[in-house]
Amino acid sequence: VDYSVRVRCYKAIVASGRYYEHGVFLGVLPLAMRMAGPREAVWHSLIRKNYGATHFIVGRDHAGCKNAAGDDFYGAYDAQELVESVRDKIGISVVPFKKLVYLPSIDKYLPADTVADDVETMSISGTKFRAMMNAGEDIPAWFSDPDVIKILSQVNPPLRNRGFTIFFTGLSGSGKTTISHGLLQKLTEIDPAHKITVLDGDVVRTHLSKGLGFSIEDRNTNVARIGWVAGEVVRHRGIAMAVPIAPFEKAREQARQLVSDAGGGFLEVYVSTSVEECARRDVKGLYKQAMEGLIELTGVSHPYEMPETTELMIDAAKVPVGDSVNYIIGWLAKTGYLERRGAPGEAADLLEANAAEVLTEGIADPAARLCEERGGQVLLLGIGPYGSGLQTLRTVMAHGSSFTKPANVFTISQASFADAEENVGGARRLAGASADAVVVEDE
Amino acid sequence: VDYSVRVRCYKAIVASGRYYEHGVFLGVLPLAMRMAGPREAVWHSLIRKNYGATHFIVGRDHAGCKNAAGDDFYGAYDAQELVESVRDKIGISVVPFKKLVYLPSIDKYLPADTVADDVETMSISGTKFRAMMNAGEDIPAWFSDPDVIKILSQVNPPLRNRGFTIFFTGLSGSGKTTISHGLLQKLTEIDPAHKITVLDGDVVRTHLSKGLGFSIEDRNTNVARIGWVAGEVVRHRGIAMAVPIAPFEKAREQARQLVSDAGGGFLEVYVSTSVEECARRDVKGLYKQAMEGLIELTGVSHPYEMPETTELMIDAAKVPVGDSVNYIIGWLAKTGYLERRGAPGEAADLLEANAAEVLTEGIADPAARLCEERGGQVLLLGIGPYGSGLQTLRTVMAHGSSFTKPANVFTISQASFADAEENVGGARRLAGASADAVVVEDE
Repeated sequence: VDYSVRVRCYKAIVASGRYYEHGVFLGVLPLAMRMAGPREAVWHSLIRKNYGATHFIVGRDHAGCKNAAGDDFYGAYDAQELVESVRDKIGISVVPFKKLVYLPSIDKYLPADTVADDVETMSISGTKFRAMMNAGEDIPAWFSDPDVIKILSQVNPPLRNRGFTIFFTGLSGSGKTTISHGLLQKLTEIDPAHKITVLDGDVVRTHLSKGLGFSIEDRNTNVARIGWVAGEVVRHRGIAMAVPIAPFEKAREQARQLVSDAGGGFLEVYVSTSVEECARRDVKGLYKQAMEGLIELTGVSHPYEMPETTELMIDAAKVPVGDSVNYIIGWLAKTGYLERRGAPGEAADLLEANAAEVLTEGIADPAARLCEERGGQVLLLGIGPYGSGLQTLRTVMAHGSSFTKPANVFTISQASFADAEENVGGARRLAGASADAVVVEDE
Repeated sequence: VDYSVRVRCYKAIVASGRYYEHGVFLGVLPLAMRMAGPREAVWHSLIRKNYGATHFIVGRDHAGCKNAAGDDFYGAYDAQELVESVRDKIGISVVPFKKLVYLPSIDKYLPADTVADDVETMSISGTKFRAMMNAGEDIPAWFSDPDVIKILSQVNPPLRNRGFTIFFTGLSGSGKTTISHGLLQKLTEIDPAHKITVLDGDVVRTHLSKGLGFSIEDRNTNVARIGWVAGEVVRHRGIAMAVPIAPFEKAREQARQLVSDAGGGFLEVYVSTSVEECARRDVKGLYKQAMEGLIELTGVSHPYEMPETTELMIDAAKVPVGDSVNYIIGWLAKTGYLERRGAPGEAADLLEANAAEVLTEGIADPAARLCEERGGQVLLLGIGPYGSGLQTLRTVMAHGSSFTKPANVFTISQASFADAEENVGGARRLAGASADAVVVEDE
């Protein structure tokens, strides 16, 4: 936590008057930590004493550090013991910091070693706390001061108020740019105030890559540079959309690291369209030239390392652009970077009263059963929020899988629930008019 | 105005139900403008007719454009006349768009040509409207629909919610970095949630400039690139602090343009410390090497073009770092990019009741008179918001001018009013204890 944030929290606690009856004087000492453990604790005591303090809190492993093996360098209570041994000479009382636990029955914290085993205690782990902050959930007042939480959530807002980067990777002509255009439009519709920085080939050539060539090193520098700009964009809670070929895993991971370090989400979309398909389309005529040996091209004369792990893998030869965009929007909603809005429950209620069959539990199985029963053309209307399983269902059924053939099903595009009422009305009309079944997903 | 914002505004107007009693159907036609003037207006009428419209609004200079000389290519009412001449064939009624004026007496808009000269009308010019939006002022409901204003101000927020760039320029060793460090700290204290991207030498070398050399062209590319990154930062409402030498006016103007285009403020700070002073300090030993002909250095073997116009010019040999930081904060507050907080009026009231002399009207003259009278050491306490004339006074009096010698005055740093009560208390104590005069500026 940054110095200025820490001091703000201290000031808020003092100003609240909730903890101290007799007034507090807050003094800030501009002193860097030396990680000198027990001896630093003694030094700290002397400084406090000279500033007029009568008591000094010595923490567990006060001013401690790790050794080369990653273990604590000092004993956990060495500092408390050393200060305790010289407290009379210094003339300051030691307040050793002990592990505290919260007792809901009396709404108080007590030292853990004074509480019997059968007394009910409560706690929130660091991991759980961070997850709650990321989700923008209320933090109970017994766990932390509300004023402090307010300050912390301004500096580290919930994910839905953070920035994020969509990082496309894939061969030239694989469909990255087409998907990114659709995504740009969709994100702008969802929230026109959330600005987007597009880092596509044109932008990078105009503003970033001059002076770099096509050596592996220069190509990696280019990708890392794009990652760095994306990082600065998410630092300010913006959206970055990067569309490089980015053939090497190392540079992609570097970009991911820079964006994560800046506090934003990172979604890698590997557009896995095969080199044969890219060469078949060959919109810019690059593959023809490369195969004739006139130019160098990733996938032909230069290698492309497939991502080892990736958030989304899309073969643009099989998945339509609209579905790809929905996948990405779905991922953003699922992870919390976009807010999930709407009232699918209400939609289900309305539709239950309708003629069409409503499938709500375990979508894939009943949908497959329906296809089986009808043995032919089935009109299916999917309705559910971004990030629900519907998107998967839709693509599976539209493009075929082990349980259904593509021709068996028409899907009607999944509703966004951005305007729940409108969607429910539309769904009702469609369901009443022509749909054989309506799939409602309110996950 | 962006398409998605425009449609949001239309939807908000329709949803409000304030303007139409009988319901509205909003249809969006994805049609690019051809700027074909009257003939495009006829085409538009045909399309509307085919979609079932009975009336069509034809604007002044509908689908018009300018000629090479910058004048209107078509006559202002050519389009209305042409559509009018074929309206019976098309079967649509023309609603010509006329200039409207607002009559506060009846709270209605009427065509200007139907209103007598002596009737009171009200209007807000485009310039005034933009200034009000920038300042975050309330826009009266008679001027624009409140729902529309809400949408517009989300997309174009008031300046205090915008991003801005502080762009330092000056010789190596002139003091740019030192001032930027002080500014970074100050801005972080003012609002730790408003993140800052620092584009100093280290950052630029690590992330941006690899592959560029020291030719004039490459140096300009480097500055333009920094400007582009700063532009992307302000696009997302962040703060960018750029610290290049930026010796050429053209590249600096390019950076300014990129930042302005992205919707952010641009403050150029020319740190004008002389080359002699920079060479005297020579912290990095660069000037010695350059004078011995070992390296190239701006100001020694390379030219530095002085900015033709600049927001702030600071000679770091004469102005202390703290004052420089206050100048910059003052500019940001004055232009509206930082909020001006506090209650200087209250401070003045409290101080009036105190023993020390309070100077409120025309600061420079009474301060000079006081220096004259006392003929020696005067302790002056300045209190006022960021951006007030106090900063100028302070520097003038601390560093000497035609009306006072530096030795005559001690100044105590100007209060920030971030916490008005605390400052008033502090000012009162100081004034009562030792100040000969208190300067209160509540501009």
